[in-house]
Amino acid sequence: MSGFPLSLPAAINLREVGPRDGLQIEKPIPTADKLRLLESLVAAGLRRIEATAFVSPRAVPAMADADQVAAELHRWPEIEWSALVANSRGADRAIDAGITNLEYVVSAADGHSQANAGRSTREATDAIPEIVAAVQKVGGQCEVIVATAWDCPFDGPTSPARVHEVVGHAHESGVDRVCLADTIGTATPTRIVELVESVRERVASTPIGLHMHNTRGAGLAGILAAMQVGIVDIDASIGGLGGCPFAPGASGNVATEELVYLCQDMAVETGVNLELLLRAATAAENAVGRTLPSNLLKAGDRARVPPPRPAGRLV
Amino acid sequence: MSGFPLSLPAAINLREVGPRDGLQIEKPIPTADKLRLLESLVAAGLRRIEATAFVSPRAVPAMADADQVAAELHRWPEIEWSALVANSRGADRAIDAGITNLEYVVSAADGHSQANAGRSTREATDAIPEIVAAVQKVGGQCEVIVATAWDCPFDGPTSPARVHEVVGHAHESGVDRVCLADTIGTATPTRIVELVESVRERVASTPIGLHMHNTRGAGLAGILAAMQVGIVDIDASIGGLGGCPFAPGASGNVATEELVYLCQDMAVETGVNLELLLRAATAAENAVGRTLPSNLLKAGDRARVPPPRPAGRLV
Repeated sequence: MSGFPLSLPAAINLREVGPRDGLQIEKPIPTADKLRLLESLVAAGLRRIEATAFVSPRAVPAMADADQVAAELHRWPEIEWSALVANSRGADRAIDAGITNLEYVVSAADGHSQANAGRSTREATDAIPEIVAAVQKVGGQCEVIVATAWDCPFDGPTSPARVHEVVGHAHESGVDRVCLADTIGTATPTRIVELVESVRERVASTPIGLHMHNTRGAGLAGILAAMQVGIVDIDASIGGLGGCPFAPGASGNVATEELVYLCQDMAVETGVNLELLLRAATAAENAVGRTLPSNLLKAGDRARVPPPRPAGRLV
Repeated sequence: MSGFPLSLPAAINLREVGPRDGLQIEKPIPTADKLRLLESLVAAGLRRIEATAFVSPRAVPAMADADQVAAELHRWPEIEWSALVANSRGADRAIDAGITNLEYVVSAADGHSQANAGRSTREATDAIPEIVAAVQKVGGQCEVIVATAWDCPFDGPTSPARVHEVVGHAHESGVDRVCLADTIGTATPTRIVELVESVRERVASTPIGLHMHNTRGAGLAGILAAMQVGIVDIDASIGGLGGCPFAPGASGNVATEELVYLCQDMAVETGVNLELLLRAATAAENAVGRTLPSNLLKAGDRARVPPPRPAGRLV
């Protein structure tokens, strides 16, 4: 731990989710562009990458090429690739395609669960053992992502008891990790720390990850607080790719390069090269054809040299 | 203090700097538009507002109407108005115009000090007693803002000893407060806390304020850390107005509404009504005629009702 009087971990275990959570709401981009993006993320030093999702191609056209993406991942054997699934059919598809590290998403709020997956939280929770069994059969890992862990766009604040119910079942089903997701980017440090601490009490032996959005600008503040209570499994999305279909124009995930900048400046190890990561962010911008919300991408690393004579002198 | 296990203050003492730090790099807008913006900020509950700057109108045309703005502030007697100055001539002008709470800016780095104010840090520091004397004569308050307190775009990292030198002189000259400014938005929590703690040791009886930029996305994370070590005098700019002339397109100050959202969700009192503040942010956007960087302004408060049926179902 470093950074007195802030208590911070020496390193975090960053997971890049841009190729899945970032791209899923975009218009479909060519598979070749996705592979170039993956290449640039690998080159920057990322070692855990969520590559795609095995979900309905009708509902999420941007993930319709999941099989084609999966078929190319052998190029980068050093990477811990994973995929998101929303039911056991998706899990079977992913495993058939050769991806054995799966994130299974369960919304803690019924409103979001119905809208997102067409079933209640309870029904989604009941499917956990089946997915864990399928993954364990092939020697893979299964994480349960608890969506709307703090707030639901339909049901309002999510009762912590609902989250405990999901993580409790996940724990008893033998998942390798649970991940608390702030799906609409409303959580702030106090509530994050409270939920993390209470989930940790409920499932002490299961690692807890964090998936924050920056929709209201508080993404990094929330991650800082979580790091202070020992959370190291943290998601981020290159360029801040992603968003929420309920809030047009709203920024989405925490930008990977902003998280890496924050960590690097605080001497918290990420294993990532920031300069190469900014190239990957530019690749992501080119791939989707629009400016991404990352502030760091606009400003550049602080090593950037300023022009010799600025405008705006005061006197 | 609330928010276990984060140690947070019960309230912060927010200062709105959009009308000065936000607008100073913009094309000049009509004085009437500025006054409408001030009106909306007052309506939202802000009680400390930096109204303008008394600096060279040639160098900063957007602040050329400082006298006209100052002449109207009597409309809102409940507000603690202040103005920024960069030398004692500016201080005299401000006092003549009826503003007696002054921020005097001193760059801790020589490179920025020369570029910004045409003189060295030492020369700028030497002028502190003169400005304090002028302010005290009229019963006002004087704050020294230490610009480039962490990093300088010309000189690189700022030695803490240079900051201590400025705040030490400010303290001995009897200033009412010092404010540490992250002028180019590069500081992160560890360095913020370290500098705050060391400055506090140096000038124990002088209150310390904080002025962060969000240029690399870490603004609120830095403020969270500072609040955890007891900093409550915090600047922010409506809509995230502002920026840096050295980084075109880079976002600027921490957005007031994002800071208020963060505080409100953590039960830290600001005295501000978020809904009315979002109206002020919209007024700021209209005044400058472009989209401002605030994420919250794009997404809305979490009370916003989502559409009944979202796109993007997974299955």
